[in-house]
Amino acid sequence: MLKEWNKPEMPSDEDRQMRLAKARARLIEQQMQIKEKKIPVLVLVEGWDTAGKGSVIGQVINNIDPRFFKVATMGALTDEERRKPFLYRYFEKIPEAGKFQFLDSGWMDEIIKARLHDGMTEETYAMRIDSIKRFERQLTDNGYLVMKFFLHISEKEQRKRIGGLLNKKDTKWRVNKTDQWQNAHYDQCLDAFDSYLKDTNMPSAPWYIIDAKSRKWTELQLLEILTQGIDIALNNRNMAVPLLQNVFPMAQIPLLSEIPLDKTIDDAEYKKELKELQQRLGELHNRLYRKKIPVIIAYEGWDAAGKGGNIKRITGALDPRGYEVHPIASPEPHEKSRHYLWRFWTRLPKTGHIAIFDRTWYGRVMVERLEGFCSENDWMRAYNEINEFEKELHDWGAVIIKFWVQIDKDTQLQRFTDRQNTPEKQWKITDEDWRNREKWDLYEVAVNEMIQKTSTAYAPWHILESVDKKYARIKALKTVIEELEKVL
Amino acid sequence: MLKEWNKPEMPSDEDRQMRLAKARARLIEQQMQIKEKKIPVLVLVEGWDTAGKGSVIGQVINNIDPRFFKVATMGALTDEERRKPFLYRYFEKIPEAGKFQFLDSGWMDEIIKARLHDGMTEETYAMRIDSIKRFERQLTDNGYLVMKFFLHISEKEQRKRIGGLLNKKDTKWRVNKTDQWQNAHYDQCLDAFDSYLKDTNMPSAPWYIIDAKSRKWTELQLLEILTQGIDIALNNRNMAVPLLQNVFPMAQIPLLSEIPLDKTIDDAEYKKELKELQQRLGELHNRLYRKKIPVIIAYEGWDAAGKGGNIKRITGALDPRGYEVHPIASPEPHEKSRHYLWRFWTRLPKTGHIAIFDRTWYGRVMVERLEGFCSENDWMRAYNEINEFEKELHDWGAVIIKFWVQIDKDTQLQRFTDRQNTPEKQWKITDEDWRNREKWDLYEVAVNEMIQKTSTAYAPWHILESVDKKYARIKALKTVIEELEKVL
Repeated sequence: MLKEWNKPEMPSDEDRQMRLAKARARLIEQQMQIKEKKIPVLVLVEGWDTAGKGSVIGQVINNIDPRFFKVATMGALTDEERRKPFLYRYFEKIPEAGKFQFLDSGWMDEIIKARLHDGMTEETYAMRIDSIKRFERQLTDNGYLVMKFFLHISEKEQRKRIGGLLNKKDTKWRVNKTDQWQNAHYDQCLDAFDSYLKDTNMPSAPWYIIDAKSRKWTELQLLEILTQGIDIALNNRNMAVPLLQNVFPMAQIPLLSEIPLDKTIDDAEYKKELKELQQRLGELHNRLYRKKIPVIIAYEGWDAAGKGGNIKRITGALDPRGYEVHPIASPEPHEKSRHYLWRFWTRLPKTGHIAIFDRTWYGRVMVERLEGFCSENDWMRAYNEINEFEKELHDWGAVIIKFWVQIDKDTQLQRFTDRQNTPEKQWKITDEDWRNREKWDLYEVAVNEMIQKTSTAYAPWHILESVDKKYARIKALKTVIEELEKVL
Repeated sequence: MLKEWNKPEMPSDEDRQMRLAKARARLIEQQMQIKEKKIPVLVLVEGWDTAGKGSVIGQVINNIDPRFFKVATMGALTDEERRKPFLYRYFEKIPEAGKFQFLDSGWMDEIIKARLHDGMTEETYAMRIDSIKRFERQLTDNGYLVMKFFLHISEKEQRKRIGGLLNKKDTKWRVNKTDQWQNAHYDQCLDAFDSYLKDTNMPSAPWYIIDAKSRKWTELQLLEILTQGIDIALNNRNMAVPLLQNVFPMAQIPLLSEIPLDKTIDDAEYKKELKELQQRLGELHNRLYRKKIPVIIAYEGWDAAGKGGNIKRITGALDPRGYEVHPIASPEPHEKSRHYLWRFWTRLPKTGHIAIFDRTWYGRVMVERLEGFCSENDWMRAYNEINEFEKELHDWGAVIIKFWVQIDKDTQLQRFTDRQNTPEKQWKITDEDWRNREKWDLYEVAVNEMIQKTSTAYAPWHILESVDKKYARIKALKTVIEELEKVL
């Protein structure tokens, strides 16, 4: 791309002024339309060191109301960020619907630096490219406008700029070693940039190369392309997306109706096993903490199936400093206005920690599907998006344990009635629970489709037969222990 | 893709019947919506030999009114097809808006066979992959639904089928050598298929792998995915597409206003040069005929600029058996209902022949742009689409010569008036010419943008200064000769 790139001809000063005024006026109009039509806009500015990435972002945001944009400079990874998956800090920064997020360099810069300086293997590089393509595709599929700019300058121009900065006392500090290294290895960097741009140049989120020789000319090019991209995005609201076939290896999983629910455990056995298993889990928790393995435990199941009590038996075994339980209710406004996986990305554990989700991202293909909170295209696409999400976590090194807590319809009725009739349990039962119960059969169809389509080899579903809650608790503990022992 | 593919579980007979009835009914409804919303649907069925490609197409079309679909079986290349660009026979078959075109194997099959049997180099293979990605992207960008299916069977199943066919007198003839070769080299073919599917699996036209073990199950899978794809396409009418930056090398070209128009030639010199140049061109025509080089000469220019007379001086030198002139007027209904480049793809010359276009595909970015015959997104995207089109022709080995015949506004007025006042020339001037003339300034903006954005190194524009028509004719002849001499 960079090598085939044709430097556009710089307009005359007068012409540039005119076009600049026009583009700025357009962006000012567009920010209101973006707001109104609820489009999230992610602007990624990458490029050579000293090409003026920060500077052009500063120019562009002059035309946007401060309530509508954020700017982030992605520097070197913090210690905290190193303990999260590679995409974490980028996913965390995706904008809300109707707002702009500008990134002063991002995932491209991180990968190229790792490839050039930290000896990233070709294999890891190829994995990262796949991750990025999935990440960007998930954003555009979910209605994000992703505009990617690369600010290009020549080796000579870069040398001149570095020299200029070094020559003044006030600016000397701004030149760092990688700037100088980059200039000294310009051709090598050019190759790395070029192949990255080619590898990630997707029709739905293409790269735009900007001639960054002059500050004002840079601003004009970026503004013109950005406003053009926004026009296209404004036109494309409510677009549907072709569904992709699953490409991940799957694990066998039965239909809900095929699961025998008569399994029980007697009280003495329960107490004995509980004690032993919790002690074992506590030991494993220590070991995974030391080995820095992240663990994600996801709970889904029918209302009154016994998720809460089950989770307590897991957490009862754990050191409180090393785990967190995330109860997932309906999304807050700031969560609803982002990609539906955002609130899970931001709740991921650090390496060595356990995150337990009481209800999960699978809401997309259950309640959101059945209540019409998202479009058909949205939830049909979600199986693949979720498999990709969990693949990302798996590749990061996480252990993913997904539980479906299963009871039958009669058991639920009995537990609902019991809750209703027991004063101290009444808070646990709501009208919504009864309404959901009426949709049991529809839910069963959705749950079956969900477990069939998302039981991947790297993140299979585990069924917890919970008519006897104690049986389910013991099985959960055993499953967690077994999965952790595989990696410890 | 094939290697990661998960064989879906075959439903029970009863379940299959029910789903089949539903999918068929849906397709019957959809054909009317496809017709109404004017969506062209291209269904490509690829797969292993004996997997049942023709058979499943036969099943699917049972649900479609014969007026709304066509089926083509793409066999080995004919001699005629070998003399056209690689994509020619596929582009020629793209459906009209509102209709289905089924292809029983296509460009995938052709490329894989060439790679496995005809020693296609890795370099050519990579070029073909790029061509295909551009081809499919151009179709989906222009509103086509492109559904790609790969019918998958195991080595054992294929062996069984071939054996079954060979065992009966009636069916023995249906087994050919490549079928048997494919089975004997199943793993090698699997590798080739797998990498092809990966290379061309674009989000806007993804691959769907079908378990083709049973005939009825194959039909159900294909119908369900097809109807799902159609639903998405129906939702996506009037979608705009992100604009891609040009990646082809460009040639310098001046603005129209910078071209001096005072160039002339005296009569004696004209006659002498005309004779010599035409003789030279005649010789070159013979040589390119023998060397089988295809030539495409494109004429664009102002009304009354002298295109017709100019073309005559070229054709006057040529052997009538080796060239064709294509006068391009507004498209016929069957042309208008296809990709705008279709009527040019289908008029391409054979190798060794010359095609002269009197007006061209550049209508997209001139009259269609200015008269609103296409959307803004359509014509803005067209610069790149046209560069890609000409790149395809160039890679095929064609010489592409593009003329812009330039006059000034006063000269046009004089010629219009002259035509109006001369009885035998009156047919040459219409009200439309006068209306176009009123839009001269808008056209000039469009033409400047056009020549700047499409003057590629492999297909640059040549300006013919035609205030003195004779000067323009001599320059055209010289240019054609010069370009042909480069390759002869």
